[in-house]
Amino acid sequence: MNPAISRLKPYAFTQLRARQDALRAQGVRLINFGVGDPEDETPAFIRDAIVKGITPSGRYPTAAGLPELRQAVAAWIGRRYGVRADPERHVLPSNGAKEAIWNLTPLLLDDPSQRTSRQLVAIPELAYQVYGDSVTMHHAEVFPMPLGPDWLPDLNAITPEVGERLALLWLNFPNNPTGAVAPLSYYRDALALAERYGFCVASDEAYSELWYDGSGAAGAAGPGVQGAPGSLLQAAAPDFHNAVAVNTLSKRSNMTAYRSGFIAGDPDLIRVMKDVRPRIGVATPEFIQRASVAAWNDETHVEAQRARYAERRRLFLDLFARKGIQVEASQAAFYLWARVPQRFGPSSMSGASSASSGDSFAFAEYLMDNGVIVLPGGFMGERGRDYFRLAFVPSLDTCREAVEILERVL
Amino acid sequence: MNPAISRLKPYAFTQLRARQDALRAQGVRLINFGVGDPEDETPAFIRDAIVKGITPSGRYPTAAGLPELRQAVAAWIGRRYGVRADPERHVLPSNGAKEAIWNLTPLLLDDPSQRTSRQLVAIPELAYQVYGDSVTMHHAEVFPMPLGPDWLPDLNAITPEVGERLALLWLNFPNNPTGAVAPLSYYRDALALAERYGFCVASDEAYSELWYDGSGAAGAAGPGVQGAPGSLLQAAAPDFHNAVAVNTLSKRSNMTAYRSGFIAGDPDLIRVMKDVRPRIGVATPEFIQRASVAAWNDETHVEAQRARYAERRRLFLDLFARKGIQVEASQAAFYLWARVPQRFGPSSMSGASSASSGDSFAFAEYLMDNGVIVLPGGFMGERGRDYFRLAFVPSLDTCREAVEILERVL
Repeated sequence: MNPAISRLKPYAFTQLRARQDALRAQGVRLINFGVGDPEDETPAFIRDAIVKGITPSGRYPTAAGLPELRQAVAAWIGRRYGVRADPERHVLPSNGAKEAIWNLTPLLLDDPSQRTSRQLVAIPELAYQVYGDSVTMHHAEVFPMPLGPDWLPDLNAITPEVGERLALLWLNFPNNPTGAVAPLSYYRDALALAERYGFCVASDEAYSELWYDGSGAAGAAGPGVQGAPGSLLQAAAPDFHNAVAVNTLSKRSNMTAYRSGFIAGDPDLIRVMKDVRPRIGVATPEFIQRASVAAWNDETHVEAQRARYAERRRLFLDLFARKGIQVEASQAAFYLWARVPQRFGPSSMSGASSASSGDSFAFAEYLMDNGVIVLPGGFMGERGRDYFRLAFVPSLDTCREAVEILERVL
Repeated sequence: MNPAISRLKPYAFTQLRARQDALRAQGVRLINFGVGDPEDETPAFIRDAIVKGITPSGRYPTAAGLPELRQAVAAWIGRRYGVRADPERHVLPSNGAKEAIWNLTPLLLDDPSQRTSRQLVAIPELAYQVYGDSVTMHHAEVFPMPLGPDWLPDLNAITPEVGERLALLWLNFPNNPTGAVAPLSYYRDALALAERYGFCVASDEAYSELWYDGSGAAGAAGPGVQGAPGSLLQAAAPDFHNAVAVNTLSKRSNMTAYRSGFIAGDPDLIRVMKDVRPRIGVATPEFIQRASVAAWNDETHVEAQRARYAERRRLFLDLFARKGIQVEASQAAFYLWARVPQRFGPSSMSGASSASSGDSFAFAEYLMDNGVIVLPGGFMGERGRDYFRLAFVPSLDTCREAVEILERVL
């Protein structure tokens, strides 16, 4: 067996779901703000589009996808970011963001038997696990990017010694878990480093459409929709050199169940993907592509979804303000990233002997005992140990129910 | 970029489809027996099941799949092969056979920086391109298995020096391109070698359900359905040690458009896949899983499909007998593997100066000029240069039309 397998950390979401299923099986009523899985309905017109797409005869889908889908994505990029993407040279469909992330890394790594080669991938120290897992499985090395006080990865960490060995830098804004948003100048700085050292910048923009008025997202605005978070694609336009962005319909259109997203950017990289991806079995079924065309072509349902999240977010922001719980970053995405109150330290909750501030695991345990699940920041990495992530994905009524509980127990 | 990318051969099916699309765009009427893509309808009850599976709310599918799907697959394995598979320990769903094949190899390779490690994958010299492409992309080495006169890979090629370095041996029966079927004794011999040297045997059984009375498939029968081709799983039962089989609904149920299959076998390997696969983004959408449950639970539509293929197959067998074209192997699958007649040698067709027998490229060119596409055997490798593969997937009427053409031009 591949020895890299034993170096993978347990997969967080599998663990979380198993734990939650076990508790539910015991009859425990749990309100889950732990997992970032949208719970709202997929809009009816999208479901209609997939049903219409199921035809008596079908064929093997192509990795390049339907021209209609590439065109819909390119048009969306144009409207949203105010930059021109060519459906043939700059865009490919993916089976959601995860496979796109997993399969990007091995394209950029040098031969691992050549120790002088580019075998380093820079990843924010708190990040979605799949970035690093793909690096580990492909025998390369993760370079953890320290987060600054604004929760943005500190680009100064890319010294010449690091830069020369770097194959890829992963960025992720709006961020999971912190909800942080980066200004366009940040993307420009990252691309300047990429140009200097010859690496690629990949941007996971899965949460790009979940932003809120007055949330600070406006600080990131470039061309395109005003007040919305920016994209690596804006900073990399018009040629998208060294840049690739990944997005998905999972969050934007409540389509986690469909596995549909896109990869856009550097035409040389897209060309290589058009060559490699037909071999790896990630072509998206055409009926899912038809539903995806409908979803990218419509913004009304996205605005409605943003409004739903904004209402839930407000509930928790108000609660945390009343309780003196400090919220940081959290400008966008459906996450609030907040500091664990000091009184929920490990000394009082789980018997550990030393702790100067609240411990996220003890805090999450305490909340779970009271029927509310949040993600302990320590789960994402050491830098998150004093924080927790609350995903405001349950319905407004359920959020209100949770706020009542938290009002009592916090 | 990964230097392995430049070592990949152009992807055959992408090339073929592009060429065919180009000709069609020019208004050329082409009957396509070149690509093994089923053209018959997906049965209505399967389409009903997917439509019912599209619910207002969905969630991220798990890589382990729905328990109902694992149970349906395990029950199917029991009925079909007469062996007991545990839905929890022996079975996982996949997004069709291709991704299962692509993603299996890296699990079994050792660290490529350790040159003494297992970095060799044995693949039949004529084979589906994806086996080898995954090996190349993961920096390992293909060991081509020579084919014997019966078109089965010669297991004697696995000498001690090869066996010690082997991570994986790929088998594929019923075979693409030859339609050959292996007896159970062959699988047993392969597993004995696997046990001696400590490698894994993987069996791509995508065509297992396409067999014909009196076709010789009966020679492979073990427990389970009589007269049908055998499976590695029968030879590896009850513990499936060192053995993994891949199957798909693409051919059996005309579901290429759906991307749904399974991986079954060695419980240690399945356990590792349950750990790794949630990270790689290949979880099958649940509505597709629902349709898959319906498909694995029904055999009536498979019998009807076999009967359709048998009728088309007979047309071409009769034609080739009349024309003195020698058919070899071709016991199962929807392929006929036949020798190019000597008079279609390259010297007369494409101007090449030396050839003692018919050349498959020249022959295929000649047929295409006459509106019939077949796959030149040389496309699959040197060993196939005097053969052609005819995939009898078009409708009976279209097959009759082609037979009329071939009656004239052969």
